[in-house]
Order: sequence, then C-alpha cells, then structure tokens
Amino acid sequence: MSTGIPFHIGVDLGGSSVKAVAVGRDGTLLGSLNLAFQDRNREWADRVDEAVRRLSSDHGTPEGIGLSAPGLASPDERSIAFMPGRLLGLEGLDWTRRLGAPRPVPVLNDAHAALLGETWIGGAAGVRNVFLLTLGTGVGGAALVDGRLLKGHIGRAGHLGHITVDFEGELDDVGTPGSVESEIGNKTLRKRCGDRYANTHALVAAVEAGDPEARRLWNRSVQALAAAIASLVNVLDPEVVLLGGGIARAGRTLLDPLEVHLDRFEWRPGGQRVRLALATLGDLAGAYGSAFNSIRRTPPFPGAEQ
Amino acid sequence: MSTGIPFHIGVDLGGSSVKAVAVGRDGTLLGSLNLAFQDRNREWADRVDEAVRRLSSDHGTPEGIGLSAPGLASPDERSIAFMPGRLLGLEGLDWTRRLGAPRPVPVLNDAHAALLGETWIGGAAGVRNVFLLTLGTGVGGAALVDGRLLKGHIGRAGHLGHITVDFEGELDDVGTPGSVESEIGNKTLRKRCGDRYANTHALVAAVEAGDPEARRLWNRSVQALAAAIASLVNVLDPEVVLLGGGIARAGRTLLDPLEVHLDRFEWRPGGQRVRLALATLGDLAGAYGSAFNSIRRTPPFPGAEQ
Repeated sequence: MSTGIPFHIGVDLGGSSVKAVAVGRDGTLLGSLNLAFQDRNREWADRVDEAVRRLSSDHGTPEGIGLSAPGLASPDERSIAFMPGRLLGLEGLDWTRRLGAPRPVPVLNDAHAALLGETWIGGAAGVRNVFLLTLGTGVGGAALVDGRLLKGHIGRAGHLGHITVDFEGELDDVGTPGSVESEIGNKTLRKRCGDRYANTHALVAAVEAGDPEARRLWNRSVQALAAAIASLVNVLDPEVVLLGGGIARAGRTLLDPLEVHLDRFEWRPGGQRVRLALATLGDLAGAYGSAFNSIRRTPPFPGAEQ
Repeated sequence: MSTGIPFHIGVDLGGSSVKAVAVGRDGTLLGSLNLAFQDRNREWADRVDEAVRRLSSDHGTPEGIGLSAPGLASPDERSIAFMPGRLLGLEGLDWTRRLGAPRPVPVLNDAHAALLGETWIGGAAGVRNVFLLTLGTGVGGAALVDGRLLKGHIGRAGHLGHITVDFEGELDDVGTPGSVESEIGNKTLRKRCGDRYANTHALVAAVEAGDPEARRLWNRSVQALAAAIASLVNVLDPEVVLLGGGIARAGRTLLDPLEVHLDRFEWRPGGQRVRLALATLGDLAGAYGSAFNSIRRTPPFPGAEQ
C-alpha cells in the first residue's frame, strides 16, 4: 500500500483516544487515525503502537515520528516528565525506545503541539508571535514567541487557562483563583448555570434562540475571556490570538460579543489591534504539530529554530 | 580624569530624571549620575546629552552607549516608537544620531532594560527564565525567556502590571479591567483607602504598627499580587520571580503574606516552587541594563543571544 512519498507520523495521545497522521513535509495528509481507549492497563500505549504500525503498514517506513501528550515534557524531549492522576505509566516513558524508532521521537506537551500544527498549516500559518486558547472542557493554551514555542523553565509555560480573572474566586485544579478556565470551561458550566444547561453547546443554542438568562451567563463568560485575552496581549504581545476547542465552534456567537469587550479592554498602541483567528485543524492539530516537530528536526530543517 | 579602563555608558531616561552609569564589561561601576528635569521643552534630551558628556569627560571615550526610556522601542532598536502623553519629542528620536555616536546606540524599553540589568549583575544574575514586577506608582514588568528578552510583535510584551485580577473592575490607563496595577500600585492607594493613608509607604508603616484596617487593605493588595504572580507563573514558567520598585522595599512585610497566598495559588508540579527574589540594583537597574545592552553588542559578545 506504500505510496513511496516521504512522510512523517505525528501521534497525539489524548485523554480517551489516540489521533495520528501520516503527513508529507509540505503538509499533505496521507492518512489519519483516531483510536479510542479506556484509561486502564496502559491501553493507551497499545493504541499508540497500533497507530504507528497501521500508518507504517499503509504508507511505508516514516522518515520520523513525533508524539504529544498531556503533561509537562522533559527537557530532553524524550518523555512526558509530569502527568499526575491520569495515563498511569506515561511519566518518564521514553518514546524513542518504546517505539523502537531508529531516530529520536521528539515529545511535546499536547497544547504546544497543537499550536505548532496551527502555525505550520493551520489558522496562524507562518505567524511567529501568537498564542492559542483552546476552549473546551477546560481551557488550554500555548504561545509562540518569535517563532519559538514558549516552554519555560520546567515546560509549564503556556497554561493560559490557569490565569486569574477574579482573584477572590474559587481555586481551580492547579490552585489558580477565579481562573478563566473556571469562568468559561465546560467543566464548570452546570455549576455556573445551576444545571439550567447541560453543556456549553446547549447554552450557546439558548443564546442564539434569544434566552435572556443564557445571554447573561454567556456574556459574563465572554467578558472574562476578553479580560484574559487583553491581559495575555499585554504579557506576550502577539500578532494573532488563535481560538480553538469545542466552544470556539460557536463562531460569531462567540466572536461578536468578544470583539465588543476587546474594544474596551485591549490596549491598542497607535491604533494597532491584535487579530483574532479561529484554529482550523480541529482535533488533529496536536498530531499535525507532532509530525512537524519531527519534520523540523530532519534536514533541511524547516523552521528548525522553533 | 580618565582611568583608561574600557567602559560603556548606560542611560536610563525616566519620567523626571536621567540616570546614567559608566560601567566596565565585568560590571564594575566607574561612575553614575542622576540628573533631574522638568518635562517641558525637551529638557530631558539636554540632560541625556549632559550625562553622556560628563561621564565621557570623567572616564574617557566609552566603547559604546545604550539607552532606555518609557514606551515601546522600535524594532530596529534605534528609537522609542510609541510613548504618548509624556516626554514630547521622544517618539522616533534616533539616539545614535542625536548623540553623534560612532556605533549604534541600542534603545530598550525601560522595564526591559531593568530586567536585563538585574539578570546581568543584580537580583537574578545568570537566570535565563525570570520575570520582574516593579511595584511603585504603577506596576511595571518584563520577562526573560530562555535568556532572551520577551519583546513580542510590537515591543509591548512584559507589561505585567496590566493583567486582570478582577474582570468586573474598573479599567486602568490602558483599558485593562481590574488590573494588578490598580490593586497594588501607589497611584490608586488613596482611592482604595479613602485617603486614610497618604501613600503605600504610610500604609506599610501602619501594617507594621498593627493597624487592623491597614492589614485588611494590605492583605487584599498582596492577595491580588499573589494571584497575578501565580497566573504569570502558569504563562511564563520562570525559575525566579523578581520583585522591585518602592513597594518591594517593604521586605518581609510584603514577602511573608505573599508567600502565604502563593502556598495556595501557585501550581507546583512535583513540588517544584518558583523562587521569589528582590531586585538589587534599585533605580540604576535600567541604566545598568542599557550599558549591558551595549556591552553584549561589542565583541566578544557576552550573552549576545539575549
């Protein structure tokens, strides 16, 4: 079945499924897989093996493999160093050895990988100063600074959902008081609305139907998001702010009120405003970014400085 | 008067005075000046000329000159591109030409310069991932990422005082709702305390004397600061957080409650905590950083990657 076209495999290990792509150096997608698993008995590791095996069987030997997963990647990029509570056995697992790969398999945090994918061939292709907010169950994020992934001292940088918008609010999973994740993430929706809406999708549908209580709740969440974005613009000074995740599928229902709030909150020196854009790679962003993370380590090193 | 020792001049143009240092490549201070001015008739430009002339007269011809000032530095580092409202005439002024310097005079934002100074020979010497918060009239900031100054797309990055801690709060000077600057900066103190204390120094003295109302107010400000620091740790993931400015002179009166709040708010993966440190260069930090910004452009380029 091999096409003979040189390609790389990108694997994104998520909380409940493994996404993987086989992709050429120019971004051409040769094939993709989404393999669900239960988080028990290291089933996730078997699904990663299976994804690599099936894509190799279909398309031939890859030039390289890249991988992303939740947690903090180790400084040597061979493993996830820190991921408590879930995916037991992931911490410290050396993926180059596990996959028996002839070349090192670079490992990234999943949000870092998603942004790398989006700046490669997605919603912010070619942009060198950009941050991504993924609005879903929680709020994830990542930032690119002068074309480099912002990783920080222990690989934690870019956890943009865990910034305070209400310093007297409740602490979130990592201790951040009144975080933007708590204000807009789907995981707190039922609590915020007193079980009136089952999830953010239902809330957005009610907003679009003109329900006043839904509009009030939604506006509050979007105002908190706008404050977070304005803050991050002052910290990181991007050219583009990229929005992804299930909640970003609300489209204009999200962007219209967000722009109204940003017109008040965003510092625009000399009238310069930051462009808002939507992520375009969906739930394959991390797999694409992981593949690119391998591609950029292979001569002639496109964007190798990242 | 020349000592014959090779040196650089660093000039920090502030809102009401020019600070300047003559300093060797190893950080040895040969001389410093602090020349006050009124912000009218471009008096500030004459004071910069005077500072360079006097230090050159005392110590000989410098190997190079660096300069910092408020506002956003231009991408070519020859001028301040954006500084509305104050220091009329500063925007676009080419300092290499103005000073008739034989080599380019690199220009930095003042907070960026202060952090460069502190990471050269100050409170975070040699640290490559660190951010600075200067707690004074307002709250300034700057960040170093992997040894590089975080400047961003238009030079705005690192305006760490302008991050939200209360998204329903009043907008600050640049539009940020409920910013940490509004919660702890001296400029809002009288409003926050209903004129009970004349300034933050008086508030801190009352805290130390056991005044319960002062303690309540101070604790609220420090709690807001802790939330901001915890947020910025999640965004930037530094090794060290550096605190400077007049309010940081409160020492333990600041650090003790701050550490109590950070014990709750700071995400510490695997128990790793970020070190808090005090800036040590005081109001010469910007001048030192400007000098180093010139030194690192002169062979053999110490820390030239910054």
